[in-house]
Amino acid sequence: MNFRVRAATKEDCKDISRMIMELAVYEQMPDQVEISHKELERDGFCQNPFFQCLVAEVSEEQKSKEGFTVVGYALYFYTYSTWRGRSVYLEDLYVMPEFRGNGIGKGLLCKVAEVGKKEECVRLQLSVLDWNTPSRDFYAAKGAQDLTVSEGWHFIRFDGQNLDNLANEAPKD
Amino acid sequence: MNFRVRAATKEDCKDISRMIMELAVYEQMPDQVEISHKELERDGFCQNPFFQCLVAEVSEEQKSKEGFTVVGYALYFYTYSTWRGRSVYLEDLYVMPEFRGNGIGKGLLCKVAEVGKKEECVRLQLSVLDWNTPSRDFYAAKGAQDLTVSEGWHFIRFDGQNLDNLANEAPKD
Repeated sequence: MNFRVRAATKEDCKDISRMIMELAVYEQMPDQVEISHKELERDGFCQNPFFQCLVAEVSEEQKSKEGFTVVGYALYFYTYSTWRGRSVYLEDLYVMPEFRGNGIGKGLLCKVAEVGKKEECVRLQLSVLDWNTPSRDFYAAKGAQDLTVSEGWHFIRFDGQNLDNLANEAPKD
Repeated sequence: MNFRVRAATKEDCKDISRMIMELAVYEQMPDQVEISHKELERDGFCQNPFFQCLVAEVSEEQKSKEGFTVVGYALYFYTYSTWRGRSVYLEDLYVMPEFRGNGIGKGLLCKVAEVGKKEECVRLQLSVLDWNTPSRDFYAAKGAQDLTVSEGWHFIRFDGQNLDNLANEAPKD
């Protein structure tokens, strides 16, 4: 199967939004998605965008059952390690089920690594759910470390009322 | 104890660099630090900075044993959730041992939350080591969720030769 990996444009946001929902369904948390293509257009295609995105595209002849030619995406942004410097974080990597097994996921991942290296990033990081064995095996086979297992790092999140409470307790200038 | 939380300036980078090393010693990984104040100045105080930083400062009368008045820092950057949108990620939060117990860590954390809310962030996220019970308890007491425990998220990292290998396998345009 031939596919092309390219930088997403504003016009891709409806496709990306559709696939974000497909990925959330796979991750068993579809009710968590509150972002639409409008927010993606605003946040990803402004002066200092909050994220970058690549899409994988197939030809019209190879389009999906529902008629889609944009069949995968990788959404990422730049972060910073105070030990090592610039890093790239891969927030989402997704390929539609009927297009898997053709190297599209690998193509997207490698392209993010290439873009990151060009920006002098020394790390590519991401998160994966513990029961998602296919993805964990895929990353491990490519040499990734699982830092939760090897060093014991845990993810912590504040949101909603907890975040408001913190903000309200901030010291005054 | 009186302290002031303010945005870091380029002139604070030597103090920040010193405290990054102190934090790495506490985390039992001092040999991991490869960043100096020069990289911090370059990456944090350019046109589109890779990070933002707050520092906590005490008066001359309250300076540390070694003579420092900048006694804590919070280094953060903006990330993006494809489910919820803009988020802030707290990479490092540190207060020098002799200044702990005075609300400085809480002041820094709350100020990051306040800044994040102003930027329309809906989440404040960070990572913590599993054996770092004081920090885990501190965040839990403020209402944070541990997503590694509750949902099973693991941290994955590519770096060094593994990252180079990925980049070298990127599909050609």
